[in-house]
Amino acid sequence: MARYEVRLSGSGGQGIILAGRILAHAAAIYEGKNAVQSQSYGPEARGGASKAEVIISDEDIDYPKCTRLDALLSLTQEALKKYLKDLKQDGILLADADAIKKIPPGGYRVIHKPFIQTAAQTVGKSIVANIVALGALVQATGVVSEEAITQAVLNRVPKGTEDLNLQALRAGMALVTEG
Amino acid sequence: MARYEVRLSGSGGQGIILAGRILAHAAAIYEGKNAVQSQSYGPEARGGASKAEVIISDEDIDYPKCTRLDALLSLTQEALKKYLKDLKQDGILLADADAIKKIPPGGYRVIHKPFIQTAAQTVGKSIVANIVALGALVQATGVVSEEAITQAVLNRVPKGTEDLNLQALRAGMALVTEG
Repeated sequence: MARYEVRLSGSGGQGIILAGRILAHAAAIYEGKNAVQSQSYGPEARGGASKAEVIISDEDIDYPKCTRLDALLSLTQEALKKYLKDLKQDGILLADADAIKKIPPGGYRVIHKPFIQTAAQTVGKSIVANIVALGALVQATGVVSEEAITQAVLNRVPKGTEDLNLQALRAGMALVTEG
Repeated sequence: MARYEVRLSGSGGQGIILAGRILAHAAAIYEGKNAVQSQSYGPEARGGASKAEVIISDEDIDYPKCTRLDALLSLTQEALKKYLKDLKQDGILLADADAIKKIPPGGYRVIHKPFIQTAAQTVGKSIVANIVALGALVQATGVVSEEAITQAVLNRVPKGTEDLNLQALRAGMALVTEG
């Protein structure tokens, strides 16, 4: 696999960085690839914006910053507005259906689904919206296997929350497969 | 402040990445600087090696990977061996006194102190060795203020462990000030 760039974005407290770390673990530990996971913080971090980047490659990753995104996840309208310009023309956009009402038209594939609501209603805990979204991202992009992301979720989430998070992961995957 | 590069290294389970995130938060949220915090994972991550990088600057950080380290923390001999070559000639090396017996001579300043033992004996919980080491790093480098790192520790550690972690931070600072 050539270099694959993912940015996850939303607001503070949505677990964006944990989702990024889980994806990086899935790629590196369970798929044997190289992965770099990073957060940039600026003074705007005070405002509650949150983003995490993951770059995955079969080869060494010399430049660890995203340049053209293969996939973008946005859980807030503000995050979408800020980052959509970095998405490749033929990239994949995952946008929360309730938080984001306006999606500018483009050549990218759009997965416009209720990640947050699915976490709250189907899974029963809105705090796992990050894992619902991660499941959708993996299903839509195929950047890591279902087996790898499952193992990484089990390995990285707090003890005692494994079942809840696996349920969230599967609910997110189902949002994509159901069309 | 010009660009300042820090690498924290050790083995998996030592809380290296959490320490990196706390340092980045201290700089960005409580000091108003820019910070990038990253982890690179490769297949060697299976072996339990762990590293985290933090770059702090008053200016935009265009290249988010460490090139010449201003400060290196190593909690294992293996990590020291792997990363010492990246430390600036006049940089600062923090090395655990029990885990690391051999330190090659060089122009860098060496803080060779028992972070892990201090966590276990003075604080009473070896799991906070990462925070002891972080306290020593902040005291030795001055890269963020004591106030900023204190706030960041309080904000980022699990609820209910704040006092324990503050005690660890101060014990780490004392390791440096006591000479």
